[in-house]
Amino acid sequence: MPELRKDPIIGRWVIISLERGRRPTDFPDEGRRRKGGFCPFCAGNESTTPPEVLAYRDGGSSPNGPGWKLRVVPNKFPALQVEGMLNKMGEGIYDKMNGIGAHEVIIETPDHNETMSAMPVKRVEDVLWSYRDRIEDLKKDRRFSYILVFKNEGESAGATLEHSHSQLIALPIVPKSVIEEVEGAKQHYNLKERCIYCDIIRQETMTGSRMIAENRDFVSFAPFAPRFPFETWIMPKTHASNYSSGTPEQYANLALILQETLKRLDRVLSVPPYNYIIHTSPFRDERNDYFHWHIELMPKLTHVAGFEWGSGFYINPTPPEEAAKFLREAKV
Amino acid sequence: MPELRKDPIIGRWVIISLERGRRPTDFPDEGRRRKGGFCPFCAGNESTTPPEVLAYRDGGSSPNGPGWKLRVVPNKFPALQVEGMLNKMGEGIYDKMNGIGAHEVIIETPDHNETMSAMPVKRVEDVLWSYRDRIEDLKKDRRFSYILVFKNEGESAGATLEHSHSQLIALPIVPKSVIEEVEGAKQHYNLKERCIYCDIIRQETMTGSRMIAENRDFVSFAPFAPRFPFETWIMPKTHASNYSSGTPEQYANLALILQETLKRLDRVLSVPPYNYIIHTSPFRDERNDYFHWHIELMPKLTHVAGFEWGSGFYINPTPPEEAAKFLREAKV
Repeated sequence: MPELRKDPIIGRWVIISLERGRRPTDFPDEGRRRKGGFCPFCAGNESTTPPEVLAYRDGGSSPNGPGWKLRVVPNKFPALQVEGMLNKMGEGIYDKMNGIGAHEVIIETPDHNETMSAMPVKRVEDVLWSYRDRIEDLKKDRRFSYILVFKNEGESAGATLEHSHSQLIALPIVPKSVIEEVEGAKQHYNLKERCIYCDIIRQETMTGSRMIAENRDFVSFAPFAPRFPFETWIMPKTHASNYSSGTPEQYANLALILQETLKRLDRVLSVPPYNYIIHTSPFRDERNDYFHWHIELMPKLTHVAGFEWGSGFYINPTPPEEAAKFLREAKV
Repeated sequence: MPELRKDPIIGRWVIISLERGRRPTDFPDEGRRRKGGFCPFCAGNESTTPPEVLAYRDGGSSPNGPGWKLRVVPNKFPALQVEGMLNKMGEGIYDKMNGIGAHEVIIETPDHNETMSAMPVKRVEDVLWSYRDRIEDLKKDRRFSYILVFKNEGESAGATLEHSHSQLIALPIVPKSVIEEVEGAKQHYNLKERCIYCDIIRQETMTGSRMIAENRDFVSFAPFAPRFPFETWIMPKTHASNYSSGTPEQYANLALILQETLKRLDRVLSVPPYNYIIHTSPFRDERNDYFHWHIELMPKLTHVAGFEWGSGFYINPTPPEEAAKFLREAKV
């Protein structure tokens, strides 16, 4: 049983994951690539994953067999375990709880060679719907307080399999950095009676120097204070506090702007590894006026070093205005 | 002129460093190594660095010539700039200030092939003294609020030169994660009238399962909730709020336990890349009863992925009790 442990000083929680337990010799060399070989995510290999919890399928196909467009399966090596009661405990001065949660993989395509930036945009839309469907289903489980949806693309961005996929983790607590973000937004709202993200969208649209792309429902822009070179945020133009509240037109427009942004990054940075994360409101106050859901997208271009780890103070060598200009002007 | 920019939501500051400005094609391949070739840190190449601000030298040698045991020089590509007045400004809804600060490199040895885990322990002691000397000198500059001392060893830990060196950055603000740590410790003190780190040392010494090494003045142990596999903290046994307050005996014992810990990591993890960071009190309240200075040491074994970036919620595959056992039992 994995454990969640809380740093007693700054309140940061950590998963101690015995199931993934590794001995010193188990760590791969930095440069090792797992190209080729058997892929459990490819069509025809359905029996090698845990049984699917969701699939978008052709008429007449059977669960856990071929004929799917998208599958969601539990992670075979989960960081958290779905069965059991949530128990919170002390250990001397320390606090911990058992590692209850869900860890799922969204297999975005049956085709091993299709990436999110190059797949038909309808597939990207399906991926976005699958996030919503899984969030809405897992939300019913009252043990969970937050669901983190994210994508690691490329080995140096943390992907262990190259077949295009996203992940979600349902957590029994709201992560510290989500609380910070939500509390920061709430403070602004209490002071100004306006959503800070709506203010940001207004200023970014007006100045334009950090804008990357725009459609009817969404903007894509470089944030004012990015931690990483070419960091990009995608945000709905109309205030919305949680990811699941979108309309079909909005998911279609999100798929368009997400893929366009990825194509621009691919063009400018020669198909970089990247991470994106969906930032949305915690379940307990899901519909509110102060937090504005969005996607944070970070190409993995630099090594994060001691200074960043030690200070939470990132050194970013590329001004966002320059990054945005490169991305805006890229031919896609 | 670089800029400091503040994320308006969670208050995180970022350096926008134009001097280090990079175009998309300037990012190195992940795997590239800079072995061999010319080294500006080697004895005889003193003229290729900016003039030294501190050196420990043999009698009769001249500044910026050979005959040194340790040199401290300004970083040739600094993240911050030392000249100028500190100006804080707004930009619409955003806040920023100009990038005033110091960024120095401690060249730990004239010998290109000596690493901190294998050099004579007297050299490690010199490195620790040089940190103190530079902190005490830079502290006189009232523009600075905090000095972050850190070491990146190995390219994947962020070192761009392989010759053994540390760095320090003097900052006009106290970084967010330092504030969080100090505030967390202060809360515990307000509640219990005890230093939380002193409590941790008591519990770790008593239980023993996370202890790695110990001498008269210091303990080295795996923290209860480590973010990374084999993360190790080194802490003075007697309460001390700032790094500079040590006695000569204490710096000697710190050198011994730091090198011993590095040797154990080298043995168990086959000479891993690593980062360490000195955590000490901000200048404005340097001597206090609630914060306890220490070193956090993190071997770089895993890629940090989207989940960690998105949540501040780290997945660590190695329980600290197992890591500590491996390190404790290593033959060094």
